[in-house]
Amino acid sequence: MPGLRIAGVRLAATAAGIRYQGRDDLVLLALPPGAETAAVFTTNAFCAAPVQLARSHLAQGRPRYLLINSGNANAGTGTRGLADAETCCVALAGAANCAPEEVLPFSTGVIGEYLPVERIAAALPGLLGGLTEDGWEAAALAIMTTDTKPKTAAARCDLGGCEASIVGMAKGAGMIRPDMATMLAFLATDAAVSAPMLDDLLRSAVADTFNAISIDGDTSTNDACVLCAAGTLPGGSVSAGSAGAAALGAAIHDVCEQLATAIVRDGEGATKLVTIEVQEACSAAEARSVADTIAHSPLVKTALFASDPNWGRILAAVGRAGVDALDIGRVRIWLDDCLIVSGGGRDPSYSEAAGRKVMAQDTFRIGVALGRGDARARVMTCDLSYDYVRINAEYRT
Amino acid sequence: MPGLRIAGVRLAATAAGIRYQGRDDLVLLALPPGAETAAVFTTNAFCAAPVQLARSHLAQGRPRYLLINSGNANAGTGTRGLADAETCCVALAGAANCAPEEVLPFSTGVIGEYLPVERIAAALPGLLGGLTEDGWEAAALAIMTTDTKPKTAAARCDLGGCEASIVGMAKGAGMIRPDMATMLAFLATDAAVSAPMLDDLLRSAVADTFNAISIDGDTSTNDACVLCAAGTLPGGSVSAGSAGAAALGAAIHDVCEQLATAIVRDGEGATKLVTIEVQEACSAAEARSVADTIAHSPLVKTALFASDPNWGRILAAVGRAGVDALDIGRVRIWLDDCLIVSGGGRDPSYSEAAGRKVMAQDTFRIGVALGRGDARARVMTCDLSYDYVRINAEYRT
Repeated sequence: MPGLRIAGVRLAATAAGIRYQGRDDLVLLALPPGAETAAVFTTNAFCAAPVQLARSHLAQGRPRYLLINSGNANAGTGTRGLADAETCCVALAGAANCAPEEVLPFSTGVIGEYLPVERIAAALPGLLGGLTEDGWEAAALAIMTTDTKPKTAAARCDLGGCEASIVGMAKGAGMIRPDMATMLAFLATDAAVSAPMLDDLLRSAVADTFNAISIDGDTSTNDACVLCAAGTLPGGSVSAGSAGAAALGAAIHDVCEQLATAIVRDGEGATKLVTIEVQEACSAAEARSVADTIAHSPLVKTALFASDPNWGRILAAVGRAGVDALDIGRVRIWLDDCLIVSGGGRDPSYSEAAGRKVMAQDTFRIGVALGRGDARARVMTCDLSYDYVRINAEYRT
Repeated sequence: MPGLRIAGVRLAATAAGIRYQGRDDLVLLALPPGAETAAVFTTNAFCAAPVQLARSHLAQGRPRYLLINSGNANAGTGTRGLADAETCCVALAGAANCAPEEVLPFSTGVIGEYLPVERIAAALPGLLGGLTEDGWEAAALAIMTTDTKPKTAAARCDLGGCEASIVGMAKGAGMIRPDMATMLAFLATDAAVSAPMLDDLLRSAVADTFNAISIDGDTSTNDACVLCAAGTLPGGSVSAGSAGAAALGAAIHDVCEQLATAIVRDGEGATKLVTIEVQEACSAAEARSVADTIAHSPLVKTALFASDPNWGRILAAVGRAGVDALDIGRVRIWLDDCLIVSGGGRDPSYSEAAGRKVMAQDTFRIGVALGRGDARARVMTCDLSYDYVRINAEYRT
């Protein structure tokens, strides 16, 4: 893997005692002057205070700092939560000699508790003094909640004459779509990219990576994905529509894909990584609806956990996905390349032994062809295990 | 509880060896001549062979027999499955001297295996010989799959001069919305009701009982609910719009409510029965969408299992339910009568101890007011426990 370093992008992590003992829980990411930043946020109506503030600050100009805490989501905290997030930004602005609007706040952790603002403010001078371009690994550890391991990824791409780097970190752990297990992802590149183009690159990469994974179908109040272009690479300016833009887009997609896959693989209680590919749909939305219905079905997910090729549950999920006038005689379903359903029932070639062999793997594919069009969709998910229940029944206690 | 008996409606159960050992798994319900029958079926596109056949037979005239098996859903079985269901109807018609179209078949159990038609046919003479008006309890036992207890209910109503009886039985156990845990419900009354009116009474009762419960959000290939009016009560003819019709409708609703509640209470692995009431929505559909999102959230359901008043998860579910332009400052959330959320966050009056006290009960209410209209919806659900995973990971093995 390419090194975890972007020239001019510095990070620091520290233990502010927000919730956890004996581990870092507060991260500062500093950008060089002129860096551009794009971000996408949760669509949850109860979006957290830091999400509201980060969105507002980003609209006002170029950020200089990202301030990220784990252990507390600062969500469901009303007007006091918003004031608390603002106070953190003001405190950092004072210590770093910038405007509060140049700080984007991010939080992940339990919902409905107030942020320990004084402990965070007290930790800021130490963070500012500890900033280093080698801080990605420590930062990836500090933003974890129920994740079992830190998630970082990197890629390089040829811009014609120079090579750009992309580095990213993320935390899950439940999913995209958790409540306390908020997905946060932060990416940076040394290429120089205009703000509108950076926004396009990020949205395009997120659509079929972070937005196409599901652990349990719950959408967080705090989800955010941020992409910063430091512009520190000599000759690394990329213009829209160029070959360099395509290469950079592919590399950003690659990093998002690595991080999204790592999130699902580390899904709460997950023992399997399953890709659901739906094809031959009338529209991408229809394909996505079928893929989501399979990915969210507790009956399918417990069968995945049991390594049980209980294809009737997949078939039932396809049948209730709301596809208008579905001709079940045309539907085919595969486990990897093993055809299990055709003609409205079990394919004659299918054997339970073949199905079991696929399901025994820790990574495999459920393929569905609807036989009604050319559109397709892909979703990554995991199984539903005893540990998912344990983790989520015990999280606050 | 009123007695489990409807004059003229006879039942028998037997062990046909369809899947289980040492228990009954085949039921015959016989109706008197002239009885009217109404039914509602699953909306799953992959509806099972018996559902297709029962729907077709019902459209052709008055049924005389319902033939119900557990242990095998005869779903995902293609054209052979349809032929198998037809063979069972023909065999019964031959033994009972009626037309095959006068038989409605119902199946519940594992998906994707072929029905043991010969064993079923062999059991029919014994069933015909054993029909009795006192057969409801035995039948309720025989239709169980993962249910832990049989489910029967009864009610009476005054028709002005005579008293009508309504008796019903049902099996879950996962939900309305299972795959192998198909919900089947069979009700009968001795009142005389026209077919169109019977259909209205059934659909009206089902809408906010069987169609407003959820264990895991999966919709079966086999769900069915049947209501028969034997017309055996002297003077018990009910005409549309009469006081008797209202009384009968209320009593049918009462039986459906009892059975629906029993299904949720016996939900797979369920330890709690939770009613979700959403009010002040712009439309009933909007209220229902919010209620369903809460009812289906694995994070809410694991918190229910843990008796953990983790209201942030409820709030996050409300926020992602897709309500357009939701003003979160107007949303209030209760556990029973304990107000937990207002003004976008925790209500000042709320204490964790009060929340824990409500959640420690095995039956309680989650109330949500959206502050934007007058529409409401109610859904009953249960928690997500280790046992849900165990039951569904082990069902076929």
